[in-house]
Amino acid sequence: MAAYSRFDRLPVNLSRSASASLPAQLAEQIRALVLQGVLQAGEALPSSRALSQQLNVSRGTVVFAYEQLVGEGYLTASPGGTRVASQLAPLTDSQQIQPASPKRQKTSGPTFQTPAESAQPPTPASQETALDLRPGIPDTSLLASASWRAAWRQAAASPGRTFPPAGSPQLRQQLAQHLRLTRSVLRDPQDLMVTAGARDGFRLVLTALRLKVRGRPLRIAVENPGYPSLQRIPLAFGHQILPVEVDQDGLQPALLPTGPERPDLVLLAPSHQYPLGASMPVSRRLELLAWARKNGAYILEDDYDSELRYRGDPLPALAALDQAGAERVITLGSFSKLLAPGLNLGFLLLPAHLRQELIGLRADLGNPVSSLTQEALTLFLASGGLRRHTARMRRIYTARRQLLLTGLDNLPRGRVLPMDGGLHTVIHLPGLGAAEEAQLVARLAEAGLLVEALGPYWSPQRTSGQGNQERAEPWRGLVLGFGGVPDRKLEQGLGLLRQVLRELAPG
Amino acid sequence: MAAYSRFDRLPVNLSRSASASLPAQLAEQIRALVLQGVLQAGEALPSSRALSQQLNVSRGTVVFAYEQLVGEGYLTASPGGTRVASQLAPLTDSQQIQPASPKRQKTSGPTFQTPAESAQPPTPASQETALDLRPGIPDTSLLASASWRAAWRQAAASPGRTFPPAGSPQLRQQLAQHLRLTRSVLRDPQDLMVTAGARDGFRLVLTALRLKVRGRPLRIAVENPGYPSLQRIPLAFGHQILPVEVDQDGLQPALLPTGPERPDLVLLAPSHQYPLGASMPVSRRLELLAWARKNGAYILEDDYDSELRYRGDPLPALAALDQAGAERVITLGSFSKLLAPGLNLGFLLLPAHLRQELIGLRADLGNPVSSLTQEALTLFLASGGLRRHTARMRRIYTARRQLLLTGLDNLPRGRVLPMDGGLHTVIHLPGLGAAEEAQLVARLAEAGLLVEALGPYWSPQRTSGQGNQERAEPWRGLVLGFGGVPDRKLEQGLGLLRQVLRELAPG
Repeated sequence: MAAYSRFDRLPVNLSRSASASLPAQLAEQIRALVLQGVLQAGEALPSSRALSQQLNVSRGTVVFAYEQLVGEGYLTASPGGTRVASQLAPLTDSQQIQPASPKRQKTSGPTFQTPAESAQPPTPASQETALDLRPGIPDTSLLASASWRAAWRQAAASPGRTFPPAGSPQLRQQLAQHLRLTRSVLRDPQDLMVTAGARDGFRLVLTALRLKVRGRPLRIAVENPGYPSLQRIPLAFGHQILPVEVDQDGLQPALLPTGPERPDLVLLAPSHQYPLGASMPVSRRLELLAWARKNGAYILEDDYDSELRYRGDPLPALAALDQAGAERVITLGSFSKLLAPGLNLGFLLLPAHLRQELIGLRADLGNPVSSLTQEALTLFLASGGLRRHTARMRRIYTARRQLLLTGLDNLPRGRVLPMDGGLHTVIHLPGLGAAEEAQLVARLAEAGLLVEALGPYWSPQRTSGQGNQERAEPWRGLVLGFGGVPDRKLEQGLGLLRQVLRELAPG
Repeated sequence: MAAYSRFDRLPVNLSRSASASLPAQLAEQIRALVLQGVLQAGEALPSSRALSQQLNVSRGTVVFAYEQLVGEGYLTASPGGTRVASQLAPLTDSQQIQPASPKRQKTSGPTFQTPAESAQPPTPASQETALDLRPGIPDTSLLASASWRAAWRQAAASPGRTFPPAGSPQLRQQLAQHLRLTRSVLRDPQDLMVTAGARDGFRLVLTALRLKVRGRPLRIAVENPGYPSLQRIPLAFGHQILPVEVDQDGLQPALLPTGPERPDLVLLAPSHQYPLGASMPVSRRLELLAWARKNGAYILEDDYDSELRYRGDPLPALAALDQAGAERVITLGSFSKLLAPGLNLGFLLLPAHLRQELIGLRADLGNPVSSLTQEALTLFLASGGLRRHTARMRRIYTARRQLLLTGLDNLPRGRVLPMDGGLHTVIHLPGLGAAEEAQLVARLAEAGLLVEALGPYWSPQRTSGQGNQERAEPWRGLVLGFGGVPDRKLEQGLGLLRQVLRELAPG
């Protein structure tokens, strides 16, 4: 016996030309009626027979929709008929989300994860209240300027465009100009390829070089210590990593193997070694380039934050020293520090002799960067927005760096490494063991301050260096980022740090 | 002797805190003065000594800037001093580009390449005037609706967000709902990963599966004929392709090898085989799934345009038939047909048992999709924009398909294959040879009509099928897209086609 329904006709309306199937449409509309309170908890629905007649659809359509909603917990089925569930499950996120309204320009929006948060396990301190001084997070609060918003508005108005595999020709023109002005690199826009950031560019280079060596795994020299995010990529493709020790001038070319075990590729950040901060002097750069030419290897230059320099001018990119016609340097560019990490936009600067190969490969694999993003960035660069934003952020970061140096002055323990650029600093704590380092980071997290340990930046593999083939002993200490925190929070965090280090001292 | 300069002081202004080097700033400002006409053709510039004194910079800075501008053709150097060149080179694209203005909302913008144009060599007919009926191009002219623009505006206002490696949780919620409503797939948002389109998803799956088989090349069964864009990807990574013949019901599971040479992965488009158009019946889908379970293989379902269906409801996705807990189907989703190909946005629907592995790999390799794009799409889906756009485009494409069928009625030669969905059709021309097919396409291009040849969709490799191991004989004919052309142009193109086919007949 069907339950009594107060609806002669359920207020639903199906369309055979809509994209959703009839049962899906029906289920969605009933769900909406429940959520809006039109259909109330415990209320009976029409029988499937009655509703199918009303809507002129098969009875199976109604039965399917009812069953789906029973499965989802909106309805309950009983011998007496189908009713609205009396205890509704809480709304899901997708139902709670605010639809885009043409009127609203801004939204506070929910809190989103930072890359560091998403890559790391949750720490004891609540993410809400913690002072997050982990490295790698720039300040994006001033990015949405008028020219930024205008660029995206204009790009969104013409969503139909598509670009060649190397990227928008106009964006490549703008990038070539940007490189000329900021990195002293004078190169043809044709040598540039738009990428979804450094990792996308690195993957493409690895794929191309593997084809060149007929599929054997590549040998890739990396800095030790070095940037783990990029070093994990070759491992995922089965390539070999050769860690090479760095000193105060960066990677040591003298330690690179030259025999049959010589690397095919050397990955390094010559302008700002990560995390120790060295800027490689010109003499060593020339030595590295000579090694690469002699050994037929490529140099992959990770130029991730050279625009952010506080003392002296940045050295020109390694690519600017490369020998025209016999280039060995491939440069990975990224806007993740200068603009925003979530933007996933960067570029590859290619030797002319690799251009065709890489672009052909890119055509087969697909360029993952949205045309709309490319167009928006083109407009942003052409309007001078990037130049203005960079100048502004340099002023802000310079002040914040000064705050950091003051706050780290006369630490109870440890020494602060020189920091001429970038958005992070390193506190070396000699005498600390691995377990003590981990305890320190945990203790800081408990106190509400998130930082990173220094030791884990060293490779667990044996190292090519110092004549021996032992694993290099990691330095212990802390890596602190100061890009993404407001001044007040930075001062607060540094106060906490001093306090915890005082408990730790003497070392 | 220095030339006389009418400038006591050149109106330039250098900043030591700007991101560009001093010579670069100086060169840029002089370049701007020339382009603005402040410095006129033939006019003398101050001597390097005078300008260096004015600006309080080293003389080398000025010399460097002048030399760069001489190299670029803005200035000329002579014994009498440095002057503005009398014949300026034409402006480059990057100088001509319109900067984004906060006031302008729309721009007509330059013409950009379609994906087909960028992937193919130029054809004899001018791209400007040609009727482009090549497949793969949807109509994007109606995409920039109010809710589309609002979604991007809102997303651009908060550029700082970043998302976990699998993508925005809210976008995955929206996508799960979209799949439920349009593809009868009831799955947890956790099983979804946001991708930069089908090719990005395919690459990730290949990398993960290769790790599972400890690095040996994978064997990948593909449809013959099939979609070349996806098939080129495994080849770039050194995997093996096994072409398997399709019939009027799609890929034939009976032809899949089961011995030691069995494929690790079967790539197919069960809802709409490309290019022949078959929709695989349920019985064959079940057969395929049983084969996959028995052989421990995965099925990669390319679900590229199922929402665009004109006759009958689309069959549910293959993933909807998959056995919960023992899933073998990975679905590649894409918005390139439903929204725009340049958007580069899609998703992967993963078996729960692959979820952790794939997300871990994604964390190492990086998700290339911009957070801003993810946020904009979330808002667009949440506001119902996608649903409205799909319904609208189905009406338009349904009418355009009718126009096409009418225009192809009683062709002088060839038969039109049934076309129940999608944005293309196939004209089979039995009796035509490979050379004649190529001539026909060239003849049409000369007449101003761009279409694709059918034969090249067949694999040049030997085929697994019909008991033999011979290369399958390609069908000859034409593939026509009708998505991206206005009705008038479509009619015009079909008129041209009839005319050229009439010259060709009888076959």
